[in-house]
Amino acid sequence: MGSHAKPLHILSSSQFDRDFLDYMCLLTDTIRRFDKSKEGLMYLKGLLAHKRAMLYFTQPSTRTFLSFQSACNIIGMPTSEIRDSSTSSERKGESIEDSLRTFSSYVDLIIMRTATPGLCDRIAAYLDETERPVPIINAGSGPDEHPTQALLDIYTLNRSFIRQDGIDGKTITLVGDLKRGRTVRSLSSLLTNYQDVSLRFVSPPEFRIEDDLRTLLTEKGVKFEETDHLVDALAYSDAIYMTRVQDEYDSDNESASVDTTRFHLKAQHLKHMKDSAVIMHPLPRRNELDVEIDKDPRAKYWRQERNGMWTRVALLTKILGVDRKIVLPEL
Amino acid sequence: MGSHAKPLHILSSSQFDRDFLDYMCLLTDTIRRFDKSKEGLMYLKGLLAHKRAMLYFTQPSTRTFLSFQSACNIIGMPTSEIRDSSTSSERKGESIEDSLRTFSSYVDLIIMRTATPGLCDRIAAYLDETERPVPIINAGSGPDEHPTQALLDIYTLNRSFIRQDGIDGKTITLVGDLKRGRTVRSLSSLLTNYQDVSLRFVSPPEFRIEDDLRTLLTEKGVKFEETDHLVDALAYSDAIYMTRVQDEYDSDNESASVDTTRFHLKAQHLKHMKDSAVIMHPLPRRNELDVEIDKDPRAKYWRQERNGMWTRVALLTKILGVDRKIVLPEL
Amino acid sequence: MGSHAKPLHILSSSQFDRDFLDYMCLLTDTIRRFDKSKEGLMYLKGLLAHKRAMLYFTQPSTRTFLSFQSACNIIGMPTSEIRDSSTSSERKGESIEDSLRTFSSYVDLIIMRTATPGLCDRIAAYLDETERPVPIINAGSGPDEHPTQALLDIYTLNRSFIRQDGIDGKTITLVGDLKRGRTVRSLSSLLTNYQDVSLRFVSPPEFRIEDDLRTLLTEKGVKFEETDHLVDALAYSDAIYMTRVQDEYDSDNESASVDTTRFHLKAQHLKHMKDSAVIMHPLPRRNELDVEIDKDPRAKYWRQERNGMWTRVALLTKILGVDRKIVLPEL
Repeated sequence: MGSHAKPLHILSSSQFDRDFLDYMCLLTDTIRRFDKSKEGLMYLKGLLAHKRAMLYFTQPSTRTFLSFQSACNIIGMPTSEIRDSSTSSERKGESIEDSLRTFSSYVDLIIMRTATPGLCDRIAAYLDETERPVPIINAGSGPDEHPTQALLDIYTLNRSFIRQDGIDGKTITLVGDLKRGRTVRSLSSLLTNYQDVSLRFVSPPEFRIEDDLRTLLTEKGVKFEETDHLVDALAYSDAIYMTRVQDEYDSDNESASVDTTRFHLKAQHLKHMKDSAVIMHPLPRRNELDVEIDKDPRAKYWRQERNGMWTRVALLTKILGVDRKIVLPEL
Repeated sequence: MGSHAKPLHILSSSQFDRDFLDYMCLLTDTIRRFDKSKEGLMYLKGLLAHKRAMLYFTQPSTRTFLSFQSACNIIGMPTSEIRDSSTSSERKGESIEDSLRTFSSYVDLIIMRTATPGLCDRIAAYLDETERPVPIINAGSGPDEHPTQALLDIYTLNRSFIRQDGIDGKTITLVGDLKRGRTVRSLSSLLTNYQDVSLRFVSPPEFRIEDDLRTLLTEKGVKFEETDHLVDALAYSDAIYMTRVQDEYDSDNESASVDTTRFHLKAQHLKHMKDSAVIMHPLPRRNELDVEIDKDPRAKYWRQERNGMWTRVALLTKILGVDRKIVLPEL
Repeated sequence: MGSHAKPLHILSSSQFDRDFLDYMCLLTDTIRRFDKSKEGLMYLKGLLAHKRAMLYFTQPSTRTFLSFQSACNIIGMPTSEIRDSSTSSERKGESIEDSLRTFSSYVDLIIMRTATPGLCDRIAAYLDETERPVPIINAGSGPDEHPTQALLDIYTLNRSFIRQDGIDGKTITLVGDLKRGRTVRSLSSLLTNYQDVSLRFVSPPEFRIEDDLRTLLTEKGVKFEETDHLVDALAYSDAIYMTRVQDEYDSDNESASVDTTRFHLKAQHLKHMKDSAVIMHPLPRRNELDVEIDKDPRAKYWRQERNGMWTRVALLTKILGVDRKIVLPEL
């Protein structure tokens, strides 16, 4: 990453094409094999031990923070963190550009989680004009983008279907608050990169997908259905992707008046599902996904969470240019 | 620690028997010899560099936190931390089990400090039923348990009496708030593992030991006395263990009405003590232990504090299965 | 740093003489050459990997904190941190001496940022009397001292003038709130170590330098002028050191009534400056330094900030006795 060369930023799931997704799945699979031995893990830990990362998380997210921090630990990269912008020099009247340029001067990469849509793009563009640009990863920007969540979802699907020719041709059912979950939007959008995927959207009428997603899917020629009958959808699904009600985006507590109980996945639903199906959830969950299901072999959401750490390891090595030392370790 | 094998959890000082205590003292002594050289320290640092630990400290304790974090640093194990449960995903309605299972998915060990008695046991039992259980260390659970404090106290006593045949046969005097200090309860209980130990409990009438401890000592055949005369007890003591008033457990500021000044150790008391005696305190102290005493060679509380870090190193290596590489480094 | 040997503390910029400054500049230059390759960085990272540092920052300063933490990361030294003294054991009635002695028992070095003038000196003197003293670095003590800022300023000047015979003989202009900026006081004081330096102080009448600095400069025979004409001063300056209004030290919002706009450096001022001049600022800035200037090759403040990290690496290696392994790496 020489001076003045523009780094690879990860700003939006829309920048991932099929080739990139396939390569990231391969890279993640390879990395997970290194997890089987101390030797493998120590090899990973030596790859980026000379670099440093900043976790700039002014919007709280314990889960994503820990996942990224652990990923940095795995590749030996020390981290610094900003968790609360009110304690930063911004209090002394500094601009956000100056603050981030300051942070960038100490590290080789910034992982950003903010409540401000577009801020990551703005900072990436600003730093690209300086003498020492560093890559930016968007780790969630309000209701806007969360590209690494989309990537881990794709990896988990791909991995789950590894003996069934991958994601192509599968029927994937998304359930819950489909209107406000950026996860649903990003994942659906990424799935347009695959052949013959069918999508089913199961939600209360109040939480149906937005028009922009309908338009995208139609343009891309992806078959999709919208329904409010969960049980009917289960029998035909290769994957069931559950989501919680995103009531943090309520303007007036409107979620409370929506009956979501018909969209909860219960243990009694398991018998309606294919033996080969997989159940996913981005977590945290509330009551939309029964804890009784955790022990069913089709429940993949805990692995999905751990996969998040491994896909982030993969992304960090790709961005910082050591991914080929993993895929081809003799290098 | 293979999948589905139940890990060694450290949940209560009652799980330590004499063999375990003797081994932990030996292991800690060996580890401290590695501290004498850069080579030794780098050997320790390579032992667990491929693992990761989580410090889950929702009850504040700077001292215990730093001691454990430093112990992790010594063996090369990166740490992640939760210091405030209100910033975690629990805010989004997640259960404590789901939160801890999430954290466990990123690491190889969880060190827990909470205000909730029994929570560590519950989480350990819950994780043991999952595909990827990790060891839990109780680093203090309200008024309940603090097994690593008890372990460091035993190590400090053992080390102090190394030229006097160890802890067997010694008279140990505990002073202060003996009613509410879990340290007193845990240490007294562990001392029942040794031969011919005599205990003296020196406290105001309001802060005497509880019946359960009296019953235990009687059952185990341990000689003990209760008194409110500090000076009389000093002359016969091999160790004086001072404690502060635990007024954080007051329900109605009742500590303020107790006269504790007669139970403060002052410089003028030193002349009443044996030359070979040791003075201990779990720290932090207030005025129950005069700072003038710090320079007396019998004052061991600062070493006791640093011993805490080394016993925690020992415990971590034991739990994660690399202790034999320390005791027998040719392995 | 054997037991009972007094460590090298960094408490005040007044302890730096010309020889020390020259050596630190050489050491920092050498360290920056190690930054050019992974091999060089991994060599640095191995130097102090067996040590541990504490960042005790009870006065917030994100910038200085991150700079020191990154410096520790570069030399492989794990860090622990205290950011808020209210969460520490001080709440349980512990003295500050006991708290710091506790922290010192876990680490090999303490970096302190506090609002209390003189606290670093007091703690250093206290620990020097214990069995296990550790070095203390003052990372800013209220309006009092900030020796590492002074050091990085000297390094940046020295580096900027490397093809012009260094700092000797240069004219350095300091602009802004010269009354309350400890940076101005420390830097001016350190510049008395150089030959034939001329200083110009440009400020509103309300923010002129204090008498103690005038007296020092007169005693040392340093030429200086005080003026409120910024443009006149620019043409003769080899370095322009901008500072912001330190209104955090206002007692009654008095800064608001001072017209500082004549002391703002604007893009239109650049034409009045020498081609070889350098522009510095300790950052954060407000409007006293136009962002348009950032792209001018004479703007050195972003490098100055990054230099802070490298001079802190140099200082850490010097204090902990591995500096000769950098200057003479065959050792």
